[in-house]
Amino acid sequence: MYRAYGFDEVAIVPGRETCDPEEVNVSSTVGDQKFNIPFIASAMDGVVSPEFAVTMDKFGGLAVLNLEGVFTRYESPREVLEEIIAARTEDVTPLLQKIYAEPIKDELVTKVIKGMKEKGIRVCVSATPVRAKKLGKLSKDAGADLFCLQATVLTRNHQSTNYNPLNLDKFIIDMGMPVILGNCVSYEVAMDLMEAGACAVLVGIGPGAACTTRGVLGIGVPQVTATMDCARARDDYYKKTNRYVPIITDGGMTQGADICKAFASGADMVMLGNTFAKAQEAPGKGYHWGMALPHPYLPRGTRIRVGMCGHLEEILIGPAKTDDGTQNLVGALKLSLSCCGAKDIKDFHEKSTLIIAPEIKKEGKIYQKAQSLGMSK
Amino acid sequence: MYRAYGFDEVAIVPGRETCDPEEVNVSSTVGDQKFNIPFIASAMDGVVSPEFAVTMDKFGGLAVLNLEGVFTRYESPREVLEEIIAARTEDVTPLLQKIYAEPIKDELVTKVIKGMKEKGIRVCVSATPVRAKKLGKLSKDAGADLFCLQATVLTRNHQSTNYNPLNLDKFIIDMGMPVILGNCVSYEVAMDLMEAGACAVLVGIGPGAACTTRGVLGIGVPQVTATMDCARARDDYYKKTNRYVPIITDGGMTQGADICKAFASGADMVMLGNTFAKAQEAPGKGYHWGMALPHPYLPRGTRIRVGMCGHLEEILIGPAKTDDGTQNLVGALKLSLSCCGAKDIKDFHEKSTLIIAPEIKKEGKIYQKAQSLGMSK
Amino acid sequence: MYRAYGFDEVAIVPGRETCDPEEVNVSSTVGDQKFNIPFIASAMDGVVSPEFAVTMDKFGGLAVLNLEGVFTRYESPREVLEEIIAARTEDVTPLLQKIYAEPIKDELVTKVIKGMKEKGIRVCVSATPVRAKKLGKLSKDAGADLFCLQATVLTRNHQSTNYNPLNLDKFIIDMGMPVILGNCVSYEVAMDLMEAGACAVLVGIGPGAACTTRGVLGIGVPQVTATMDCARARDDYYKKTNRYVPIITDGGMTQGADICKAFASGADMVMLGNTFAKAQEAPGKGYHWGMALPHPYLPRGTRIRVGMCGHLEEILIGPAKTDDGTQNLVGALKLSLSCCGAKDIKDFHEKSTLIIAPEIKKEGKIYQKAQSLGMSK
Amino acid sequence: MYRAYGFDEVAIVPGRETCDPEEVNVSSTVGDQKFNIPFIASAMDGVVSPEFAVTMDKFGGLAVLNLEGVFTRYESPREVLEEIIAARTEDVTPLLQKIYAEPIKDELVTKVIKGMKEKGIRVCVSATPVRAKKLGKLSKDAGADLFCLQATVLTRNHQSTNYNPLNLDKFIIDMGMPVILGNCVSYEVAMDLMEAGACAVLVGIGPGAACTTRGVLGIGVPQVTATMDCARARDDYYKKTNRYVPIITDGGMTQGADICKAFASGADMVMLGNTFAKAQEAPGKGYHWGMALPHPYLPRGTRIRVGMCGHLEEILIGPAKTDDGTQNLVGALKLSLSCCGAKDIKDFHEKSTLIIAPEIKKEGKIYQKAQSLGMSK
Repeated sequence: MYRAYGFDEVAIVPGRETCDPEEVNVSSTVGDQKFNIPFIASAMDGVVSPEFAVTMDKFGGLAVLNLEGVFTRYESPREVLEEIIAARTEDVTPLLQKIYAEPIKDELVTKVIKGMKEKGIRVCVSATPVRAKKLGKLSKDAGADLFCLQATVLTRNHQSTNYNPLNLDKFIIDMGMPVILGNCVSYEVAMDLMEAGACAVLVGIGPGAACTTRGVLGIGVPQVTATMDCARARDDYYKKTNRYVPIITDGGMTQGADICKAFASGADMVMLGNTFAKAQEAPGKGYHWGMALPHPYLPRGTRIRVGMCGHLEEILIGPAKTDDGTQNLVGALKLSLSCCGAKDIKDFHEKSTLIIAPEIKKEGKIYQKAQSLGMSK
Repeated sequence: MYRAYGFDEVAIVPGRETCDPEEVNVSSTVGDQKFNIPFIASAMDGVVSPEFAVTMDKFGGLAVLNLEGVFTRYESPREVLEEIIAARTEDVTPLLQKIYAEPIKDELVTKVIKGMKEKGIRVCVSATPVRAKKLGKLSKDAGADLFCLQATVLTRNHQSTNYNPLNLDKFIIDMGMPVILGNCVSYEVAMDLMEAGACAVLVGIGPGAACTTRGVLGIGVPQVTATMDCARARDDYYKKTNRYVPIITDGGMTQGADICKAFASGADMVMLGNTFAKAQEAPGKGYHWGMALPHPYLPRGTRIRVGMCGHLEEILIGPAKTDDGTQNLVGALKLSLSCCGAKDIKDFHEKSTLIIAPEIKKEGKIYQKAQSLGMSK
Repeated sequence: MYRAYGFDEVAIVPGRETCDPEEVNVSSTVGDQKFNIPFIASAMDGVVSPEFAVTMDKFGGLAVLNLEGVFTRYESPREVLEEIIAARTEDVTPLLQKIYAEPIKDELVTKVIKGMKEKGIRVCVSATPVRAKKLGKLSKDAGADLFCLQATVLTRNHQSTNYNPLNLDKFIIDMGMPVILGNCVSYEVAMDLMEAGACAVLVGIGPGAACTTRGVLGIGVPQVTATMDCARARDDYYKKTNRYVPIITDGGMTQGADICKAFASGADMVMLGNTFAKAQEAPGKGYHWGMALPHPYLPRGTRIRVGMCGHLEEILIGPAKTDDGTQNLVGALKLSLSCCGAKDIKDFHEKSTLIIAPEIKKEGKIYQKAQSLGMSK
Repeated sequence: MYRAYGFDEVAIVPGRETCDPEEVNVSSTVGDQKFNIPFIASAMDGVVSPEFAVTMDKFGGLAVLNLEGVFTRYESPREVLEEIIAARTEDVTPLLQKIYAEPIKDELVTKVIKGMKEKGIRVCVSATPVRAKKLGKLSKDAGADLFCLQATVLTRNHQSTNYNPLNLDKFIIDMGMPVILGNCVSYEVAMDLMEAGACAVLVGIGPGAACTTRGVLGIGVPQVTATMDCARARDDYYKKTNRYVPIITDGGMTQGADICKAFASGADMVMLGNTFAKAQEAPGKGYHWGMALPHPYLPRGTRIRVGMCGHLEEILIGPAKTDDGTQNLVGALKLSLSCCGAKDIKDFHEKSTLIIAPEIKKEGKIYQKAQSLGMSK
């Protein structure tokens, strides 16, 4: 048994060089798409609507629309969302079950994707393996730029005698467009997914301590170790093939520091759910929920109140009104890079050093000097 | 001093293969009895009544009836149970002391076992070493299928000049039927108990942090390490003798994840008390208590309220109404195995990997994506 | 830097043998005095009065009377104690300062010791180095059996140009009676104190997490490591000289488990303050306080309410009315020894094994099976 | 990844020798200035006013006046301070932003420094790199004794194409007076700053768990490891050059124990903010705040209430009215040194031993014997 580490257990050591944070470049590339900021909004109905995706694109990031959510099941998804938001706590679970039992409509899939394309943005949509073939074809035909095939645990070798498992390699060839694959947490599986043809790999299974996956199934790897292992696979795969498959750390990050540590661990981009669910532009209006599929193994969806902490602009580029690391994430990331003298994310991979330094909760919050959080300029 | 690990300190790493959870086989065998689900209900009066044992058998598991509890002391145990449940908190301890001072009746032992056999179920009964000879003979004569000889700490070498210690080897030969022995926590003692002839070995001494054994005596080994060590003994004993003695992890598991980790640590079955005490079918009706023996070294029994969280069916095979890992334990176990590509429990022993990844309690519970807890199908 | 361990971080692993707890012998010897139970009450005014010492002797243990407390400063100490107990919280500190500013009376020292001797008990009294010569002589003349020279940190090499440091070697020779020395925490200092002639060594500096010594000075060693290191010094010193100098673990133990672990770590006896302050016979009547010396470096004394948890008899030999490990300490210790097949404390030193197994606090207290806390008899 | 340690995770092991705490010398030297007590008050407006600096000097310590605070922006800083203290919580942030937007006046810089010099004290003033040249020259001309160039992260190699980075080596030569540089946390950067000509090096980046730097940027190194690493650089640099550059541990210390551990880790002096903000002489009158620079990367300043815990004299040299390690810091430090037999701070560096011994929070505070916190005299 080896020890795995999460965000709360490590810290970044500043290096011998520093640089001007305003000159730091945090852009990242997935497939053939370059994004000015390395943030991706999770494919969840409380986080990403077509309108949210447009706003996210405006700031240089990416939002993934879930093709298995309300936007492809209902003509008037807004009403459905309002119903979820307005429901009494005790009624939420059966309501979600009912709402997500409504079939997905092909024409809505097409319409939603085309609608986003018409706004001139890069469109990324997601589906689970069981619906991947059908939704994949519809997405491609409608003009999506990126397709995200996502399951809690995805491998290249899935066996069943009940049904015909999706062949990842063949699926990606058939798609003929960039496909993001995930989620995984180990060197071996990340390597498998890259070899299957992924244009990017999502990293994160049960990353949070309170995670359902970890609490119910016992499965999970803390994100620092998971990201490091998968980044190693990326680097080895690149040496072998000269193809660079970016690593997207997905989940477990709750504040700016966690995001900075994900990049220091080797991430090329990060995928955030909760963080963006708090944006005023998020369709959940301060609520966030899992999609209650009628699956016998599934814990049912619950709705939680995350609150709203500002416009997406404040969350991404500030100015920060709070000092808790939930606003101006781009500024925090640039400053963190500059403290290590890193000009861009790949430079940060090389120059940053992590130490094991668990956060110890003090009863009385220690007040810290904030007078000169700038660099030595 | 070496480091020992408990459930909260480890996590399962999913492997390179996955499989269809519906094709996973979680059956297990003890002695010559095969059980479709690898769950055993603890021999405690708040958990197992003869009726509960029948229901448990129906779902494919096993419930152990304690031969030193109310069912063999009273003609009308139901009234006695109701008295315990209805007692005011301050009256419980003396009441329990009085109730368990009533002698065990040979004829009730026989009647209770025969009654269960008449329902067509596999019958497993338990006794402590001091009463093992007498209760063992009665059990065998009445037709019990399995006998469980259980003490907090059981060894093959017990010394006393005050009384004649039970010779485990001879006892098992005399019984001439499968005998489960426990509890133990180390390679050496597990090996001793297997060599004494155990048909299965119970693993777990003071596993919980708040455990009386650990709090009062300082004795205890966290269950992951204990299970791993005893499973190693099982494998070595098997290599030597070609006899496979299953390991039953007993105690310390509070949610589905813990159970999955017990199997990943090497368990063949798990024994659960608290979990089943919460079933509506449990005789304790939401209460659970230790049996207050008039022993000078014993902390007296206390009654605690565990509440009821659903029918045994919901606990075992769902559908889960909560996402806290206390319902649909069979589903959670199958899904956990399928995430490691394991077709059955022995396959899981080989394919699962554990990492050290302590659970860090966050103040604000992190919301996790639950959209696709299924596999990559 | 090496890692040091405290009671909460270790657990005892039961061995391959067990024995009848009723045949376990927990007696221990200090100097030429044999004690049937290895428990010593701390030299504090809230814990030990001359009457308490008599009761403690009756049960086979030892209570140390502090020669610098109220019993040697006042003709009517009972009235002074009642004043402390009755004081309002805000008045306690100045009151304690006033009370302990009263000079120690030689005649009271003599009278108190003679009074205890007349009851036929073994008398042990304590003093700090600064008053050791004077109080030592008075004690010896009055017939004390054991003298305890105790400072928070005691070494054989104390330097000062302001005053003439006490020469420990010479002091013990001059005393011509058994002298206990402490406190220390390391192999080297324990060895020094043994070589200086100690009849026993007290182990423990800042053992508790909330300890003033540790919080104010940063000084402290967790008790498991401290006891192990000093016990190693004892064994090496014994090999070299054939003189066995018992180790007394002093402080940091809050429940039966901690005491059992102290012995498993190598202790020959344990010294307990808080535990005995809770006895109904303790002079503090449920209160406990430090003695507020007018020393510029000293944090002032505070009085805390510890409550009363039963008669000394219940605390020592039960029957236990609670299951929290604060009653029937002798029973718990015997049972812990018997779980390791140890017939006496030295046997326990050899046969017990400790593992590193931190206690993890669970939100919901786990209920443990308490049905058969007896051995395999 | 290596493990780094903070104050809460280590403890000091007392040694084989002890000495009279009254003979311990805790003086320290920075540049050509000797200070009788090794305590420096942080350059923050809630902590250091010119008057506070005079009082601090009287007790033998040093207070650093921030040249970018209210005292150099306003003719009547007292009124401004009162405005901050009196503001309602919701108005504080915009008020601080407004107040610190007022330009720094050259003539006030000169006046403030000259005013302090006239009181006959050693004057130390601080500035950030961006204003260092200008404020440095003014300081030198006005007669300051020490100049402190401080940024959250300072390196010898800062790069920018937007502006001309400050050349540390040249700046120090141009200044022609002792310059303290900081903050840093690693051997390499401490060595760089010493080679750049620092007269002392400040150690500490994000030391507290709840630190903004750590929470927002993920950057930080626990202070024990940071101090040890930088002290190693100091010792190596001294061997190489025969110039001794003292290490000042800055931040993360909340009680006497932490301060003692900083010195045991290798610190020559410590810089304290919160501790001195609680003095009745502090300009913040029980409040403490960061200076809200209009910087896009900066979390805004917040004001927190720290309360007042006594006069500076009580905090420094007692007598302590509390036992929580926040008063009589000099006494605690001397006593801690004496427990290790150390006559002065450099002797303490050699003789003290640290162990890894995490503080475990107990629910019920353990009462500790406080009877003899003096040495073995």
